[in-house]
Amino acid sequence: MDDVFADIDGHTEEYLARLKRALAQPSIAAEGAGIAGMAALLADDLRAVGFQVEAVATDGPPVLLARMEGRRPERLLFYNHYDVQPVDPVELWTSSPFEPIVRDGKLYARGTSDNKGAIYARLAAVESYRRVRGDLPVGVTWVIEGEEEVGSLHLHQFVAAREDALRGVLGCVWEAGGRDARERYEIGLGCKGILYLELRARGAARDLHSANAAIIANPAWRLVWALHSLQGPDGRVRIPGFYDAVRPPTPAQRAALADWDYPEDEVRALYGIDRFLDGLTGMALKEQLLFGPTCNIDGFHSGYGGPGSKTVLPSQAVAKLDFRLVPDQWPEQVLEALRAHLDAEGFSDVEIAWWEGEAPSAGDPEHPFVQTAVRAAERVYGHRPALLPMMAGTGPVYLLCGQFGTPMVTAGVGYADSRAHAPDENIRLTDFVDGVRYIAALLSEYEDR
Amino acid sequence: MDDVFADIDGHTEEYLARLKRALAQPSIAAEGAGIAGMAALLADDLRAVGFQVEAVATDGPPVLLARMEGRRPERLLFYNHYDVQPVDPVELWTSSPFEPIVRDGKLYARGTSDNKGAIYARLAAVESYRRVRGDLPVGVTWVIEGEEEVGSLHLHQFVAAREDALRGVLGCVWEAGGRDARERYEIGLGCKGILYLELRARGAARDLHSANAAIIANPAWRLVWALHSLQGPDGRVRIPGFYDAVRPPTPAQRAALADWDYPEDEVRALYGIDRFLDGLTGMALKEQLLFGPTCNIDGFHSGYGGPGSKTVLPSQAVAKLDFRLVPDQWPEQVLEALRAHLDAEGFSDVEIAWWEGEAPSAGDPEHPFVQTAVRAAERVYGHRPALLPMMAGTGPVYLLCGQFGTPMVTAGVGYADSRAHAPDENIRLTDFVDGVRYIAALLSEYEDR
Repeated sequence: MDDVFADIDGHTEEYLARLKRALAQPSIAAEGAGIAGMAALLADDLRAVGFQVEAVATDGPPVLLARMEGRRPERLLFYNHYDVQPVDPVELWTSSPFEPIVRDGKLYARGTSDNKGAIYARLAAVESYRRVRGDLPVGVTWVIEGEEEVGSLHLHQFVAAREDALRGVLGCVWEAGGRDARERYEIGLGCKGILYLELRARGAARDLHSANAAIIANPAWRLVWALHSLQGPDGRVRIPGFYDAVRPPTPAQRAALADWDYPEDEVRALYGIDRFLDGLTGMALKEQLLFGPTCNIDGFHSGYGGPGSKTVLPSQAVAKLDFRLVPDQWPEQVLEALRAHLDAEGFSDVEIAWWEGEAPSAGDPEHPFVQTAVRAAERVYGHRPALLPMMAGTGPVYLLCGQFGTPMVTAGVGYADSRAHAPDENIRLTDFVDGVRYIAALLSEYEDR
Repeated sequence: MDDVFADIDGHTEEYLARLKRALAQPSIAAEGAGIAGMAALLADDLRAVGFQVEAVATDGPPVLLARMEGRRPERLLFYNHYDVQPVDPVELWTSSPFEPIVRDGKLYARGTSDNKGAIYARLAAVESYRRVRGDLPVGVTWVIEGEEEVGSLHLHQFVAAREDALRGVLGCVWEAGGRDARERYEIGLGCKGILYLELRARGAARDLHSANAAIIANPAWRLVWALHSLQGPDGRVRIPGFYDAVRPPTPAQRAALADWDYPEDEVRALYGIDRFLDGLTGMALKEQLLFGPTCNIDGFHSGYGGPGSKTVLPSQAVAKLDFRLVPDQWPEQVLEALRAHLDAEGFSDVEIAWWEGEAPSAGDPEHPFVQTAVRAAERVYGHRPALLPMMAGTGPVYLLCGQFGTPMVTAGVGYADSRAHAPDENIRLTDFVDGVRYIAALLSEYEDR
């Protein structure tokens, strides 16, 4: 590998310059800002390195489908996204979010960590690899969508149109990840699923003086009671059958969990909490974080929220909920059970205003593709990476991988203070270079020996 | 009375012109806009009619204390307020809220009904009465505050400083009121009390990605559970002892309730509801509205409330609650019982962030002062007025009257479509003239016969 690593070192400035140009191009999916420009710039950069690129149309932003052949017919799948989070609160940024700048060995800009840094690390790895070795050992199919940050709303249209491109690959290199708070490299092997929905209770046609509360139903109370019927102070979801489909971790998944070093003290300090839920710690905490399904209130809004007092009987109350799902819980089934539960508990007046869902997908730490990724990481990072059989968050893993039986591993260039989704998002330049090397090392694992 | 009524008729244009000048002067307590100017204008108008006026300083707007002697030493107390509600949403006004204008026999402006119309009707009555009869039969002490619309926050300072002015009066003529939806004149004899407070639950130091909901407490759930412990789907307040202090209506109060014609159909149509709470109707509905204590959620706010989905574990949740209290429930006692209840139910982490309270005060329909007001109303309106022993809303009745044993009656110039607190606030000119006559008739009841 030294030959490829040397080429990477010799072109680092050039690779960083290309990344900076991409970071200077806004691409905020939530606002539609710069999305088309970013798709065009990225397609050009992919073509310049030798990819065949097609912009597959959806009802949302186009999905870039880039292909490159290797010496052997087998293929790897790469997944990334070219959109970024909004920049608010922009006043908390030290420098402008779309004017990339290096300070103290860190590159600051929106998208550095999530996830233009990872895209351009992969591109750099492929470029150096081919310059030194001629061809890649295996082909690469690269899917880069433009609305991951708003829930990959139209990605299923791409999948329906180009399912063939997703089948029969060796494995998928997913976006995100990097080093943890103790500098250990971390690889995710799957994602929880999600059922996100809005509950709505209605009262009078408009807000009324709260003196009317004596004789007119308050939708905020209706929603409080309906929510209480879903989950009580013990934290258990009360929807009948909710836990029935939950598959416990396999021995290999449990071993990976045991090996994973969750930085409890650092997390408690960072988030300003005295203890974790139910006083959990150690293995039980890790298992709950990665394998525990949840019902979370993302928002509850009703009536007056300004300063001081206003006596209002609200006309409506809305709660946004997310259920994080684990194998084998399916969003549609949970939704159906939720509706039946609300009806049975006397809350047929509480509407499910809308919903969206993604299925869960857990990974097998013993899968050969995962073991290949582990070897590549050991070569670059010098230690055995932590493996997360399932990540606590959600992405379209089932959609792109799980449903086709494709194993996946994350590969990112972030670190504990990368501030994804927050002001002063940044990556360390050393992590970028390691990220380039890691993809090169992973490709090299597929050389005939 | 015909002599005084004739004088009123002869000066109606002049009285309306004076009212319009007062309506053209903004005096929005919530914004502090025009309060000082309104206090000065009103003091001048009071002096011009012969009142001794003093502006009693508080930490808020000054309270005007106006006095006029009568032929006899006994005195009536008048209570009004010179502040008005904000005008938002201003775009829904047909004409500018501070440019009073008459259309179709109705005078439109912010404050016409609530309650500058009532102030200037009283002033007109006193002026005509004195012009025709020389002196008033009894003295008048007139308290006019400038922050009723924001909860009379500093009125207690006035009361502490001038308690002597409030003691030993025949009775108090309170602000507000008028004709109901069936044109019957309505007189309120008291108010529910209130305990208004904010409950606050806290989680992590900032909003987190909702993947953390598996291991970090969600304050929105804490607040849902705490609220559920306060009142369940049966609508009963679960704080131990909450109902113990409730005094049932007296036979006279019950008779007044029975005689009151609550327009159920009109209210349901106006508010767009199918039924009242618990299917209440008739006497039970009226008793619940006027004599039932409540625990209302005025607002509940936590986490994300925008369009679509955002996966957030909120860092805090806030609910604003009002308890409407009836005799003999005291705000301080309910507050204490609430805190003890939350602690006992395991919610000592849920803070009572702040609170304010007013005591309840119910009236006796058989009190001689009330009977005097009824006779005056019969003379002017030609029918027996409805008597509400307690109104569903809250005002500083206990502070100014109840604690001194002073009976009170409301006297206003509104009607069912007066739109107090809303765009296109208005009064009918005929109701204004009747309001002037009513105060004159009430004064005349104290003439020696």
